[in-house]
Amino acid sequence: MSATSYSSKVDVKARERALKVLHEKFYVVLKDILEGRPPKLVIKKRTLSNTIYEPERKLLLLGESVFERSLLDLREAKKFMQTLLMASIIYEALSNSEYPTIRDLYYRGKHTIRYRKLPSKNVGEENTWDEQSESDSVLRDIEVFTNVLREEMLILSKEKGKVVGDLKIRSGDDIIDLSKMGHGAYSIEPTPDLIDFIEVNAEFVLVVEKDAVFQQLHRAGFWRSYRAVLITSAGQPDRATRRFVRRLSEELKLPVYVISDSDPYGFYIYSVFKTGSITLSYESERLATPSARFLGVMMTDIFGSNKLNKKPYLTEEERRNFIIRAKERDIKRARELKEYPWFKSERWRIELDEFLERRVKLEIEALAGKGLKFLADKYIPDKIGIGDWIE
Amino acid sequence: MSATSYSSKVDVKARERALKVLHEKFYVVLKDILEGRPPKLVIKKRTLSNTIYEPERKLLLLGESVFERSLLDLREAKKFMQTLLMASIIYEALSNSEYPTIRDLYYRGKHTIRYRKLPSKNVGEENTWDEQSESDSVLRDIEVFTNVLREEMLILSKEKGKVVGDLKIRSGDDIIDLSKMGHGAYSIEPTPDLIDFIEVNAEFVLVVEKDAVFQQLHRAGFWRSYRAVLITSAGQPDRATRRFVRRLSEELKLPVYVISDSDPYGFYIYSVFKTGSITLSYESERLATPSARFLGVMMTDIFGSNKLNKKPYLTEEERRNFIIRAKERDIKRARELKEYPWFKSERWRIELDEFLERRVKLEIEALAGKGLKFLADKYIPDKIGIGDWIE
Repeated sequence: MSATSYSSKVDVKARERALKVLHEKFYVVLKDILEGRPPKLVIKKRTLSNTIYEPERKLLLLGESVFERSLLDLREAKKFMQTLLMASIIYEALSNSEYPTIRDLYYRGKHTIRYRKLPSKNVGEENTWDEQSESDSVLRDIEVFTNVLREEMLILSKEKGKVVGDLKIRSGDDIIDLSKMGHGAYSIEPTPDLIDFIEVNAEFVLVVEKDAVFQQLHRAGFWRSYRAVLITSAGQPDRATRRFVRRLSEELKLPVYVISDSDPYGFYIYSVFKTGSITLSYESERLATPSARFLGVMMTDIFGSNKLNKKPYLTEEERRNFIIRAKERDIKRARELKEYPWFKSERWRIELDEFLERRVKLEIEALAGKGLKFLADKYIPDKIGIGDWIE
Repeated sequence: MSATSYSSKVDVKARERALKVLHEKFYVVLKDILEGRPPKLVIKKRTLSNTIYEPERKLLLLGESVFERSLLDLREAKKFMQTLLMASIIYEALSNSEYPTIRDLYYRGKHTIRYRKLPSKNVGEENTWDEQSESDSVLRDIEVFTNVLREEMLILSKEKGKVVGDLKIRSGDDIIDLSKMGHGAYSIEPTPDLIDFIEVNAEFVLVVEKDAVFQQLHRAGFWRSYRAVLITSAGQPDRATRRFVRRLSEELKLPVYVISDSDPYGFYIYSVFKTGSITLSYESERLATPSARFLGVMMTDIFGSNKLNKKPYLTEEERRNFIIRAKERDIKRARELKEYPWFKSERWRIELDEFLERRVKLEIEALAGKGLKFLADKYIPDKIGIGDWIE
């Protein structure tokens, strides 16, 4: 057995890039010290009030408000030190060809500092951080400060997203044909910016919220028949899946359709793909896909709509068997969605009002229950064909 | 756009097999009726009292107790009908080349039966089933009754397991080289019995509980340096991951090592791979890997052990920074484990007593926090080298 020393060529380059940016960005601290100024970092605020929805770009973005983090301010000294500690851990991991996760960055930095209290000279103790939420927050500050996403610093994470389709990619040192995955699928890497698209033979991207439905569509050859790139986020999408979808949209100019459960949580999952998430708005610029379309399941797919002159896809009996009564938290969530600027279109109002009036929801699985052929050969292609989606 | 009509050759054969068995097994019902007997099904009980640990085979198995489900017994008529309903839905799905999930089987069967109450002739209503737990339970009865796992009936499910390594497999109509996955991984199909192993160049299987740690080891080329098949269950293992691991052990004769967090939940995850799960003991015979070895993280890896003449892998300072205080539920879980026959070895007693005495736990990520090279190039190969595992 020999030592682990493998790094793909792609990773070697990525490390060099990240090391260079980190060095440049944090050089300001050294410069402050060398030139006799109290060192400080100026970082964009990640607060809700500095999170702005830009209707033209259809994105949730950080505004221009900044805060200063100064070593010589008692209230900020700890945060300042935490930030430099985290930056140095990342720098070291990059130099040593490591691949830390956000969890082990927390462990790498966690220790107790002993100090002498003045004037008593008693010994005090202070932990660098106690909870991962603290180290995660510092890491986000570094992402904002350097404008480098953690994935570009080769910080890994668990990864749920999968893809199949007539698409060849280069990842690491390999070329992978995503149409040759058998009954399995390709599990997207945590650093999708390092993927190259080699050859594409597809007309659109279909993102399915639920892994089990993805499995069914894949197995029935949906992506083959309809020339689709088929993706699942397996629930709330992680960053890598979002970035992968964005790149398919931006670089390959493929239209992106999202299918989720018909309930406020499903609608929100779509909006995370399209607009970004509220807590991580600084990533939207890279991770969101503003052109993503909500294909369904819509409330108006279930009940039809006079306003839209639309017939329902379900019979009354199917509705009786398939729909689930909404819970109080679903209702609350729908009311919250109605207040988000990116849900304030006329089209979304119809869906949300229908939900609030009927107070029922529907899972994608119910459509597969009506028949996989119905889902794969009627519902999805019909809706794409007649343009029944929400922009 | 054309109709979805794809099925791999493997699936076509699997369908035929499952249709045949279902037909044969349920023919007894028809025969009873034709020959004038009240129709009934005789099925092994899936109760705790009929779940037996066999120490020789190291497996949790169903015992020999059976129950009869008879149409003409009022207490059983509903369950009898549910069982036939589920069997007919599965039969129909197989005939129509569908790929249902357990969730959509629930939807497919869910409806309301109206009947006339005698002697009043009022109309009564009865749902086939209300909750998925009911339809799932009926499906399990069918698995036990037919001795065919749901995967063999092409019932799909969401799937978390991933694999990389120097191993070629055939899945569906494709041959897939699991050493050419780039930075991504191969996501195991929900029906791993349909996989063929084509070419193997590996000395052992390493199963890592946590996806993020799998990503790190993969990225650092662990499987390449140490000739391993690297697998993650991404938490509690699902059936497909367990079956895949079992097949690697049984058919390729590869030793299987499992790494999990050092706490009772991690220990239990290992035991699910090795022995089976209590609630699904009827599957153990096919899904469990009795030869699987627990490599770590052990309590005695953290603290060392005089009894075992073993030095700790962590320094006192690392312990201070890495270990987490156990919660009340961890303690309770450890006491439960001590009562399970398959944890009643001397070696497990040492680990569980150490846990109950120290009342602390440790995540795998803490070892990666000490350094990925430590985890990949020292901890794992050292322990395998000197045989420091629990059988």
